[in-house]
Amino acid sequence: MSTEKLELLYEGKAKRIYKTDEPDILLVSYKDSATAFNGVKKEEITGKGRLNNEITTILFEKLTANNIDNHFVKRLSETEQLVKKVTIIPLEVVVRNVVAGSLSKRIGIEEGVILKQPLVEFYYKDDELGDPLITEDHIELLEVATKEQVETLKTLAKKVNEVLKAHFLTCNIQLIDFKLEFGVTSEGKIILADEVSPDTCRLWDTTTNEKFDKDVFRRNMGSLTEAYEEILTRLGGQSTCTK
Amino acid sequence: MSTEKLELLYEGKAKRIYKTDEPDILLVSYKDSATAFNGVKKEEITGKGRLNNEITTILFEKLTANNIDNHFVKRLSETEQLVKKVTIIPLEVVVRNVVAGSLSKRIGIEEGVILKQPLVEFYYKDDELGDPLITEDHIELLEVATKEQVETLKTLAKKVNEVLKAHFLTCNIQLIDFKLEFGVTSEGKIILADEVSPDTCRLWDTTTNEKFDKDVFRRNMGSLTEAYEEILTRLGGQSTCTK
Ligand SMILES: Nc1ncnc2c1ncn2[C@@H]1O[C@H](COP(=O)(O)OP(=O)(O)OP(=O)(O)O)[C@@H](O)[C@H]1O
Ligand SMILES: Nc1ncnc2c1ncn2[C@@H]1O[C@H](COP(=O)(O)OP(=O)(O)OP(=O)(O)O)[C@@H](O)[C@H]1O
Ligand SMILES: [Mg+2]
Ligand SMILES: [Mg+2]
Repeated sequence: MSTEKLELLYEGKAKRIYKTDEPDILLVSYKDSATAFNGVKKEEITGKGRLNNEITTILFEKLTANNIDNHFVKRLSETEQLVKKVTIIPLEVVVRNVVAGSLSKRIGIEEGVILKQPLVEFYYKDDELGDPLITEDHIELLEVATKEQVETLKTLAKKVNEVLKAHFLTCNIQLIDFKLEFGVTSEGKIILADEVSPDTCRLWDTTTNEKFDKDVFRRNMGSLTEAYEEILTRLGGQSTCTK
Repeated sequence: MSTEKLELLYEGKAKRIYKTDEPDILLVSYKDSATAFNGVKKEEITGKGRLNNEITTILFEKLTANNIDNHFVKRLSETEQLVKKVTIIPLEVVVRNVVAGSLSKRIGIEEGVILKQPLVEFYYKDDELGDPLITEDHIELLEVATKEQVETLKTLAKKVNEVLKAHFLTCNIQLIDFKLEFGVTSEGKIILADEVSPDTCRLWDTTTNEKFDKDVFRRNMGSLTEAYEEILTRLGGQSTCTK
């Protein structure tokens, strides 16, 4: 039995989400759009959708193999995958191993400084507000997650970090930081959702510090697809596409 | 024996700090300058220095009477007071009872919504960085305060809130939110320092919601000195100056 792609549920900046004929399963189709700075910088980049679909597939499978519950069900095609439907908790959960990006700007420590321990930050997923940093007390007052759920999110995020950091290191890549989204399943369980890709992770070469992530696009540092291809290749994925 | 005012130690946006002939005592001289938005909006307002000196004197005395350790030693003149010298912890500790200002902008809840419980926020006191909101984990990594010190700051800030909120209420004023600075004494004790005035508190009339604080200046809502005079009068201070 194959799952059928039905109506478009949601079109985001990077993905389209479709209903399927199974109520608890969604189809995610990765787009070729690149956006940054809350949509202000925008470009179509042929091949990006495939690269993120392939990379996120490999990484979700790695997480599953390490007993980290996530929404990934199966890869369907070069740009499509099936996932479990969840109710997304409107928080961007960011884990950092090394200072970069907005953290550097916020606290005035230069990019590249290694943190003594992984740092978890929460941003309120609200495009109109510009996804602001919020504290655990703000989360409580916004009632987007309970105190216990926040603890669960932190624990899960740190576990994901341990697995991914170790795996990337075997590919000669430093996992600098990344953004996760979690959701609640129909059974009430919190699982990892959305994507884990060079759009949502900072990935630097261990030896040269060369960047293989969306900063290449944000900062006009060369070919985004070449960078993402490098990640896919190092992760052992197929660089040449096969359906 | 009177304490003598010696060299200028520091000139800030609102106050000048002088050494005295007692090594642990500083003289604070309140200026007539009003500034907002990190110094972008600026004006000289005759009488403001006196008003803040008088109001902060009354409020520090109230806190002392309620066993909350603070730097206040004594009022010297209309615009001057003596304080204990401390090493300021570079955190702005903000307590909120009602949504207003930057909290409203950050989390998208309108001004005036009453919080279920007082909210404590920490901002990193760094003009160049624009005094950004930071989390307790950021405080730890910046090493500006230990975890235990952060707990002490939260406990003290909430105590200050209880005392001030109750006192303002007897004057028909709602304490919406306020900013505190704490410092460490030569004996290693954390005490409340800096000022508590309409420059650092949001104060609204209980019945009409009229604003009697720096928002009058920030938002061009009328005479700042009239607003601050109203606060001084309601607190039982002397509206007409005597030296
Ligand atoms: N398993 C899932 N079930 C339901 N929704 C999901 C799931 N995984 C991801 N999503 C949501 O689907 C959308 C993915 O689209 P995309 O990443 O393009 O959105 P976006 O442009 O980042 O916008 P948004 O601000 O909504 O995240 C996101 O809103 C994401 O939270
Ligand atoms: N008891 C104290 N001992 C030492 N310093 C103090 C004490 N109380 C307040 N201060 C510091 O003195 C300065 C007061 O000046 P003012 O409020 O004008 O500064 P400011 O313009 O707000 O600038 P800043 O960003 O330095 O606070 C502040 O830096 C404050 O932290
Ligand atoms: Mg997204
Ligand atoms: Mg000040």
